[in-house]
Amino acid sequence: MIPEGDNRHRHVCNTCNTIHYQNPRIITGTLPIHEDKVLLCKRAIEPRYGLWTLPAGFMENGETTEQGASRETWEEARANIALSGLYTLFNLPQINQVYFFYRGHLTDLDFGPGPESLEVALFEEHQIPWEQLAFPVITRTLQHYFSDRKHDHYPVRTEDIIRPPRAR
Amino acid sequence: MIPEGDNRHRHVCNTCNTIHYQNPRIITGTLPIHEDKVLLCKRAIEPRYGLWTLPAGFMENGETTEQGASRETWEEARANIALSGLYTLFNLPQINQVYFFYRGHLTDLDFGPGPESLEVALFEEHQIPWEQLAFPVITRTLQHYFSDRKHDHYPVRTEDIIRPPRAR
Repeated sequence: MIPEGDNRHRHVCNTCNTIHYQNPRIITGTLPIHEDKVLLCKRAIEPRYGLWTLPAGFMENGETTEQGASRETWEEARANIALSGLYTLFNLPQINQVYFFYRGHLTDLDFGPGPESLEVALFEEHQIPWEQLAFPVITRTLQHYFSDRKHDHYPVRTEDIIRPPRAR
Repeated sequence: MIPEGDNRHRHVCNTCNTIHYQNPRIITGTLPIHEDKVLLCKRAIEPRYGLWTLPAGFMENGETTEQGASRETWEEARANIALSGLYTLFNLPQINQVYFFYRGHLTDLDFGPGPESLEVALFEEHQIPWEQLAFPVITRTLQHYFSDRKHDHYPVRTEDIIRPPRAR
């Protein structure tokens, strides 16, 4: 239904009439760096079980995007990271998501898989499993990074990722 | 309650057991520019009725942050704008909001108040009603802009706005 004074359909609870606004959600994560390597996590959960990802997850209430990014890096990779700024930002309008990735350096090498990861490892550029990356946002962030690293200049990169319509 | 496999309290509907995740919401807007002036809107709604703001509002499902920013600029200021990139980004963790502002230039001068605005006007720097701005994110975006304009260089500015605890 469209609530009074609004101009869009909203989900309204049949029991209590509470309007449950459904707005895009933020996913926040990091690009963890150590020397010439980046850290990736092999997913232990669906979707994309067994594929490689950067640590990232849904931002929670009460935290900043930076805090969420660091928290997810700990939860998924048991890694401690010193952030050095927002790096990539993606809109995925078809699935109502906005992704943030922060660049950062590992502060120690005591990392390892959290409950949502099968394996956590450092990769040099030529070792990146490009064909086994979990999501386009991961591929694009790594492509930007290896390109920008040549000039040691990392401006914020913003991009929309629009999926082609599925064949019927 | 804390759903199985989760580690945080979530709102769960008593009737249907649906878990209503409550995540931060995105507010997206613009800094509309025409020559040496910026466009501001006088709020016709609470909170901050009668104070001046940049056009901005809650991002909706199915749109990008850029599309939402342009839509809000039309809804609140009946203004058409050509965006020139993300400019400021704010975390407001105490109220679970993340703000995006895009710089942009008005493509014509046929603007005017939408239903949520009392008045819409262009201001030169010395005309900005600094004491009647609606929110800290508006003040900070304008301060960054007038400072960055001196060098004609507009990197993405990210900031956390943490409110001091209220006196009891």
